[in-house]
Amino acid sequence: MATLVMVRHGQSQANLDNVFTGWSDSPLTAKGIAQGRQVGAELKAKGYVFTDVYTSYMKRSIITANIILDEIDQLYIPMHKTWRLNERHYGALSGLNKAAVGKKVGLETLHRWRRGYTEVPPRLKKRQHERRYDRLGVKEPLSESLQMTLQRILPYWQDHIAPRLLDNHNQLIVAHGSTLRALVKYIEQVPDDKIDQVEVPNGQPIVYHFDDRLNLIDKQIIRDGEVNGNS
Amino acid sequence: MATLVMVRHGQSQANLDNVFTGWSDSPLTAKGIAQGRQVGAELKAKGYVFTDVYTSYMKRSIITANIILDEIDQLYIPMHKTWRLNERHYGALSGLNKAAVGKKVGLETLHRWRRGYTEVPPRLKKRQHERRYDRLGVKEPLSESLQMTLQRILPYWQDHIAPRLLDNHNQLIVAHGSTLRALVKYIEQVPDDKIDQVEVPNGQPIVYHFDDRLNLIDKQIIRDGEVNGNS
Repeated sequence: MATLVMVRHGQSQANLDNVFTGWSDSPLTAKGIAQGRQVGAELKAKGYVFTDVYTSYMKRSIITANIILDEIDQLYIPMHKTWRLNERHYGALSGLNKAAVGKKVGLETLHRWRRGYTEVPPRLKKRQHERRYDRLGVKEPLSESLQMTLQRILPYWQDHIAPRLLDNHNQLIVAHGSTLRALVKYIEQVPDDKIDQVEVPNGQPIVYHFDDRLNLIDKQIIRDGEVNGNS
Repeated sequence: MATLVMVRHGQSQANLDNVFTGWSDSPLTAKGIAQGRQVGAELKAKGYVFTDVYTSYMKRSIITANIILDEIDQLYIPMHKTWRLNERHYGALSGLNKAAVGKKVGLETLHRWRRGYTEVPPRLKKRQHERRYDRLGVKEPLSESLQMTLQRILPYWQDHIAPRLLDNHNQLIVAHGSTLRALVKYIEQVPDDKIDQVEVPNGQPIVYHFDDRLNLIDKQIIRDGEVNGNS
């Protein structure tokens, strides 16, 4: 039996400001750092031992992952950083205040953009180019639905994370709200029209146990040590 | 032309206590953390851009590497952790105070053990087993000379670091006093009987420039921002 623990990064400055972030690189707040430490302390108390940690190209998730590894005294395990675990690209909404967007387009449209499965937020007019993606065989997206996000995560899951779970190695993923919602949808086979009810708050680890054929045995959410959780 | 920057981790608790550390996992002191930030600020001021960072299995080097990447805003580059960049294994000296050992065996023997090339410090009577080495095809050493240290670093240099330099990608190594002395010896072809004069202090980056056949062009040591450097 293998264990997968999935953790959303601690509170970022953009979370605090209620701003759409996506692929932009918002730092952790002091509370976000404390949430990372708290998650690490909880995982340590439960005695989890991992062989690998996966995270995105965004500093909020990388720093959270490093804080957790430090707390559980497993900094030495390999950290795999991949753009495939990046937050969903929010297109033209990136950098905009969520409440302001809601006022402009209405709360129903806002909710569909944020929580729907196939809705694509308004696309960027011009493709962005950041150095960190220069060495990959992909271009930065103009915008992504949750479905598109899951589609680009899946190859990484299939080729890297799932094989290690099948080898009975416990795995840790530290990523983003939408990335983890996409993985929850895939792992728990949540229907398309039910995924809008799934939330992954900062700092509340999701623990999955799988059998040796990667069938889901059970799911736990660690809520005990919540540091004033915020989504 | 490619650039290699080599940085020794910031001051560790064992450095402060004047204790032989080797493969034991001493944390950074507050000064060590400040040294990491300072090195990052210096590298940022000089505009270095790296494609890879290499470090050991020891938290003092991993944390220093993460601090530097954060400062230069390049946390997204791959971090390669390898036991081959671990500090030299100090055998039975590990955990002992250097001054106390000097009193016991004499300063000349102490100096040979610390700075000589082929001298092997007294071996451990019993091999240690730490979880972090369980998945490797090697056993933890009983003790290592600087020469033995270089011999186990070289395959990593040849297979990973050198090829990327030959591809014109700037590389960053964050490691340990003896690991870096071994690399200095190799890169600069320091004679065996001269290596005892080479020191690599905490927090003073060494910068090498290589031509496209990996011949050494020049070497710089960044000393400006020294935070009360300590070796």
